[in-house]
Amino acid sequence: MQRHGKHDALLVRSEHPFNAGPPADRLRARFLTPTELFFVRNHGEAPEVDRGAFRLRLGGEVEQPLELSLADLGAFPRRTIVATLQCAGNRRQELVRHRPIPHELPWGIEAISTAAWAGVSLADLLAAARPTPAARHVAFTGLDETERRGERFRYGGSIPLERALAPEVLLATEMSGMPLPAIHGGPLRVLVPGWIGARSVKWLAEIELRATPSDNYFQRVAYRLFPASAGPETVDWESGAMLGELPVVSLITAPEEDARLAPGPTRIEGVALSGGGREIVRVEVTGDGGASWATAALEPSSERWAWRFWRAELDLAPGERELAVRAWDAAAQTQPATIAEVWNFKGYANNAWHRVRVRVEAPPR
Amino acid sequence: MQRHGKHDALLVRSEHPFNAGPPADRLRARFLTPTELFFVRNHGEAPEVDRGAFRLRLGGEVEQPLELSLADLGAFPRRTIVATLQCAGNRRQELVRHRPIPHELPWGIEAISTAAWAGVSLADLLAAARPTPAARHVAFTGLDETERRGERFRYGGSIPLERALAPEVLLATEMSGMPLPAIHGGPLRVLVPGWIGARSVKWLAEIELRATPSDNYFQRVAYRLFPASAGPETVDWESGAMLGELPVVSLITAPEEDARLAPGPTRIEGVALSGGGREIVRVEVTGDGGASWATAALEPSSERWAWRFWRAELDLAPGERELAVRAWDAAAQTQPATIAEVWNFKGYANNAWHRVRVRVEAPPR
Repeated sequence: MQRHGKHDALLVRSEHPFNAGPPADRLRARFLTPTELFFVRNHGEAPEVDRGAFRLRLGGEVEQPLELSLADLGAFPRRTIVATLQCAGNRRQELVRHRPIPHELPWGIEAISTAAWAGVSLADLLAAARPTPAARHVAFTGLDETERRGERFRYGGSIPLERALAPEVLLATEMSGMPLPAIHGGPLRVLVPGWIGARSVKWLAEIELRATPSDNYFQRVAYRLFPASAGPETVDWESGAMLGELPVVSLITAPEEDARLAPGPTRIEGVALSGGGREIVRVEVTGDGGASWATAALEPSSERWAWRFWRAELDLAPGERELAVRAWDAAAQTQPATIAEVWNFKGYANNAWHRVRVRVEAPPR
Repeated sequence: MQRHGKHDALLVRSEHPFNAGPPADRLRARFLTPTELFFVRNHGEAPEVDRGAFRLRLGGEVEQPLELSLADLGAFPRRTIVATLQCAGNRRQELVRHRPIPHELPWGIEAISTAAWAGVSLADLLAAARPTPAARHVAFTGLDETERRGERFRYGGSIPLERALAPEVLLATEMSGMPLPAIHGGPLRVLVPGWIGARSVKWLAEIELRATPSDNYFQRVAYRLFPASAGPETVDWESGAMLGELPVVSLITAPEEDARLAPGPTRIEGVALSGGGREIVRVEVTGDGGASWATAALEPSSERWAWRFWRAELDLAPGERELAVRAWDAAAQTQPATIAEVWNFKGYANNAWHRVRVRVEAPPR
């Protein structure tokens, strides 16, 4: 691993702040994404944190405010959760092609990765702090700074208290068996399985119990889902729906866009995921625009908060072909067919069928 | 209210067993559906139950089996939940028009209703019975009998233990302020908010904690979601996904199919609902096939487990028009556009855009 985990193979979307993710061949290679290839979504530069002097403060609507060193945190029961994180902007590139989205990262399918996270349950800290009856939301603030609308401030966001009390919501200090790297929020980050990555606040320094959601820019303004008719000039910024739990989605990781393939039976591979811990119950792929669908085999998994690997076979005839995938989750939810159905001017939550164009041609004789 | 709640206004889909629901004008009239108009989905005749002799038995993987009279149940804390029930087969009629589905009820939009249910939390009974570590599912059996494949048996189904432990899952004895009517499962039924109605077992007589889901026909074979390619002749009955939590859905309750409307601004009304208690965050309607969408106003509601009423206005020009609605829930989930995307040979979980054809014409001069 290189310094800051900036591995050569990463697809880099921006250098300052650093934003990158694994290419499709690395995405599909392992169920747990190697840490040095795990996608990075940062809004500021990674701060340097003095581990000895570090204190996490927990306050607001609680009976017993807490101030905890990393050693203090270590005294709480340790838990490990295998969980996939996905950026709310994953697959924005497809939305951009449909209609431009300026000033946002044009992610392909690489803003998604899976790790085994270890740390303490936020619920255990909350039990020690005893939320008051007024507490409804848990707001997190990191140590990283960013600038928006001429103001410099620290990154933050919140989740409802009800979600925060679930045992799988961690304050993580380890990632796949190693101390949490600085670029992924070390020494301490939040992990909210099944929710948009933006709520898994990095370089966590402060937790505030509140009656209302965080008023941080990234909760109050950004990471909202607006109707297709809204645009940056016309939007009422408060009118969008705050993003949280992820929708059902599936991705083709092989073959890749513009691949040249030989005709005949062709293996299609990918991942699928739904929010809220909802199981993926079926994945289907098509090579004929949805006229026929092949059911994919789901790789066995008992990891409720992680993606599901799948594979299928399609018999491809020569020509330009568009492959597409769709998944169903345990709530009988499936994905919208077209980008037009999910387009929004911030480019979030694209869960339309993932389509990959390939060229099928017989090898030269 | 008439005997058995068979109100004249009900749309009756079958007499024996009785299956019926409220017409659209009654659906939209009140947030709590009048009990005599609440939809009925029965698989057998309503059994006659002697309230004095009645005993609920709870056994299987528990340390303390229970046998409880209605008076014993009354000693547990009483809870009230406002919840919408929806049959997994609601809106099957649209699927049938796309491709025939024999031997299933051709429900329009009327297999959905809302009531204020009162009773005891299943979780309180489970706490008294103390499930063993092997317990994973909670199976319910009613007193109603039905026949399938030449065998006569009692209706049943199950939910995962995790779901059963949530406080909103009730054993209900009251419906909107009155004792639970016999036709709705009285004296005692299960209420599983946010799940297909089939799991809210009526005339509840037996609860069994199990390591696996119920092996009752209606859990093991029926109420499964099969791929579009499966049919009654070719299906592996075990291969479908067991239905449980409901997907996001929205319905137009006004105007109704084939309505004749005057040109100009037209009020569109309806309901929306998502499973798992996920909030409805947006509803949109179109009168031009999805080229443009109007955002509906959502009626304020704090009832997490109930439908959301909405209204919108569309300016309709003369001609044959198709109105359509789609909703988003808090997990950024929306509905598939077309029936073809959700068709399955059992006709379950239709959550495609709901479309209503109307004729817009100027009044005669």
